[in-house]
Amino acid sequence: MTDIAMIKAAAVRLKGHARRTPLLTSPFLDEIAGRPVFVKAECLQHTGSFKFRGAWNAVSALQPKGVLAYSSGNHAQGVALSARRHGIPAVIVMPADAPAIKIANTRALGAEVVTYDRATADRDALGAQIAEERGLTLIKPFDMAEVIAGQGTTGLEIAEQLAEAGVEAGAVYVPCGGGGLTSGIALALQARAPHLRVHPVEPEGFDDVARSQAAGERLRNERLAGSICDAIITPVTGDLTWPLLRDLCGPGLVVTEDEALRAMALAHDRLKIVLEPGGAVALAAALFRPGEGPVVAVASGGNVDRAMMIRALQA
Amino acid sequence: MTDIAMIKAAAVRLKGHARRTPLLTSPFLDEIAGRPVFVKAECLQHTGSFKFRGAWNAVSALQPKGVLAYSSGNHAQGVALSARRHGIPAVIVMPADAPAIKIANTRALGAEVVTYDRATADRDALGAQIAEERGLTLIKPFDMAEVIAGQGTTGLEIAEQLAEAGVEAGAVYVPCGGGGLTSGIALALQARAPHLRVHPVEPEGFDDVARSQAAGERLRNERLAGSICDAIITPVTGDLTWPLLRDLCGPGLVVTEDEALRAMALAHDRLKIVLEPGGAVALAAALFRPGEGPVVAVASGGNVDRAMMIRALQA
Repeated sequence: MTDIAMIKAAAVRLKGHARRTPLLTSPFLDEIAGRPVFVKAECLQHTGSFKFRGAWNAVSALQPKGVLAYSSGNHAQGVALSARRHGIPAVIVMPADAPAIKIANTRALGAEVVTYDRATADRDALGAQIAEERGLTLIKPFDMAEVIAGQGTTGLEIAEQLAEAGVEAGAVYVPCGGGGLTSGIALALQARAPHLRVHPVEPEGFDDVARSQAAGERLRNERLAGSICDAIITPVTGDLTWPLLRDLCGPGLVVTEDEALRAMALAHDRLKIVLEPGGAVALAAALFRPGEGPVVAVASGGNVDRAMMIRALQA
Repeated sequence: MTDIAMIKAAAVRLKGHARRTPLLTSPFLDEIAGRPVFVKAECLQHTGSFKFRGAWNAVSALQPKGVLAYSSGNHAQGVALSARRHGIPAVIVMPADAPAIKIANTRALGAEVVTYDRATADRDALGAQIAEERGLTLIKPFDMAEVIAGQGTTGLEIAEQLAEAGVEAGAVYVPCGGGGLTSGIALALQARAPHLRVHPVEPEGFDDVARSQAAGERLRNERLAGSICDAIITPVTGDLTWPLLRDLCGPGLVVTEDEALRAMALAHDRLKIVLEPGGAVALAAALFRPGEGPVVAVASGGNVDRAMMIRALQA
């Protein structure tokens, strides 16, 4: 079970390897939101998303001979680069119909990509077989104590950076898929800045966390495809993350795809950072939902293709 | 005359007010360049460009009753925000046909914008009259010791950040208009990291600095309009900046507009930062000109409109 001691240990492991990403501000965004807005720019993290933190911490803490991950996105890149920099092999299992650019990027970071046919193959059986044969350790995308601890280092930095800015109380909005980043930040802030309240943010139609919080029990998303916020779409939260989301976080917020695109365009105009739709939902909530007092929006990733960015800029 | 003591004093004045911008890297950019590339992301500075540093230092050092500047771009925004945060008035003199968005942004940062007719009015006489009547101090865009010292703090940070990365020798490419940023960085590195060699970078057709260096005497640009790199187009270097460019810098590099646009697109894809064309010329030189050993590209600004970014992403 992840705790603040594990997050502090993760921060030691990440020092000099992960970036301490900046906490950005703009008077123009404050004006739109009607409150002070701080943006934690995790899009500037290595591999373009916060996923590098958890992957690095897991690889560094577990010291495996090699690693395996299931992912076609940000987690794959975080695991691939972490493994390469530790000098160990990484196998990433991806559907054969994943975008060619994602496969190419993951290979370019030194990983071996094994593809499978979504229609006919059993992904988990395939991965288990490869891991067994080669002695690889599975790095899960969120439901793994070392991964949550790595993501939680984002929260330590937010606490420090807000204190430097003279802010002690407020809301922290976090894009939420499986809940690794959100629960890690919530744990860190519970210990270091208890007057900062974490709220998960999800896209409309994929709001299992907000509905689970309201129901008091873990619910699933009905759909898993059809969102431009693909980076944060998961079937259900994890066995480790759900209790933390339930117990430590304030109510979830939900934004539309159009609001995520507008937040991307404003981040371009006013902060000079590139966000993917899923990475922009917390900023969208900060800008377009009513609220009082300072708000931190975690900008969790920037791995967007050019066509999607053009769509956001033309919206 | 600016010296390292003035730059160190500027760093003290800027601490807690300007951002210490990150030095970003990407294995994908290293691959394109064939050498390690470090990008100093001044687009993430307040107001979206390095200009805030020089403006803040000048306002803070001179403690004027109020300030006046001629600018329709990045310098205007840097002066406006610096003045507002010092609680003094700022008057920005702009041509009446400046883009409405630039006038609006400068006003939104608290400045009073006075427009003049380019065809009929004498800008300098108008500014001098306003300054005289209201007791305002002129903040020049580059040829002013306090402004050069402020920009030079970028060089102090580059020296520190490269040392943290274990790099002691290499090239530093800097987008160069009037030469305030380039000469300030060159002064800082001469004192702090003498094995880092500064090279100015300019767009094709507006390469007065490279030609001046080659000729050993200060030459002018023939044209002042018609470049997408408008942020770094000036008639000629300054009385203070030219001797520093001549004596402290290596040969200038020149890139095409198309290369600047390609660098913008790659900065979007791989670094998740937004650059304006003039702010991308040093990165273009780092990526597309041959060279050996580590290279720092200063990404000097990101104040680009959406249409220009779309053009870069579609190129």
